[in-house]
Amino acid sequence: MSTRPVETHGYRMNHTMLRIKDPKPSLHFYQEVLGMDLIATSNNSDFTLYFLAYDHTNGKATQEEKQGQRFLREGIVELTHNHGTESDASFIGYHNGNKDPRGFGHIAITVPDVQAACDRFEKLGVQFQKKLTDGRMRHIAFILDPDGYWVEVLPNGFNSDP
Amino acid sequence: MSTRPVETHGYRMNHTMLRIKDPKPSLHFYQEVLGMDLIATSNNSDFTLYFLAYDHTNGKATQEEKQGQRFLREGIVELTHNHGTESDASFIGYHNGNKDPRGFGHIAITVPDVQAACDRFEKLGVQFQKKLTDGRMRHIAFILDPDGYWVEVLPNGFNSDP
Repeated sequence: MSTRPVETHGYRMNHTMLRIKDPKPSLHFYQEVLGMDLIATSNNSDFTLYFLAYDHTNGKATQEEKQGQRFLREGIVELTHNHGTESDASFIGYHNGNKDPRGFGHIAITVPDVQAACDRFEKLGVQFQKKLTDGRMRHIAFILDPDGYWVEVLPNGFNSDP
Repeated sequence: MSTRPVETHGYRMNHTMLRIKDPKPSLHFYQEVLGMDLIATSNNSDFTLYFLAYDHTNGKATQEEKQGQRFLREGIVELTHNHGTESDASFIGYHNGNKDPRGFGHIAITVPDVQAACDRFEKLGVQFQKKLTDGRMRHIAFILDPDGYWVEVLPNGFNSDP
């Protein structure tokens, strides 16, 4: 839109925050399965924040450079771990927003080859909400992160508007 | 992390999806208040998807170029409008994830001047969850979108790790 208010120049969509029960499986999922970098960690007395994002520098960025981009770049996922939930047997888990009461739906990653990505996710034991072969949308899958949040997986060359 | 799996090269954190009750106030908020562009719209029989993102080309990108980035770029917000909620008196609204059952917390924008941004939001009648002067974190505010989702506002030069 050409109507963008001039006062908003320089604004960026920095991050999306999700609460997690246990950082161990979540960091494994976002780093080892999805391939994001842990660009910063913020330790607090009763909670820890983990900031994850994709490195688009082909591995050239140093950890300091990545951390320096924490408030400048887009596409960051912030995972909030309230200490204790990981070992609290009475903790019922977090709400993924896709059953009542609904609200937040999902985050989405785009990938060069959605079939190869989903084949790899299956080999790694990732849970699927929707496989490529389920339903009408054969180019889109939904996988579940360790807390049950939906992660849409779609091809970065997808251009047939549904 | 240097351990990024090679199979994930080219992955991007494309978007975050939130359900909205009524596109009119939501599009006004994300475009006119936050300054995002509507880069694509997907019309379906019973729902419509609105894809919004910041233009970082200083107004040079055409609408076609913006739409072409829909599956390639990061920092997109997808708003899902299930038709009818905007005029359904029995619709109780969407859940913002910050009271039980909790899960999703917020999206966040970074801005060059957080004080100026918040002053402008106040003049525009935006609701605040946390003003800059509330609480300990004087560099961070939280505003509410029309559905009550929290939008964190923080300076892009913020580097004192909380």
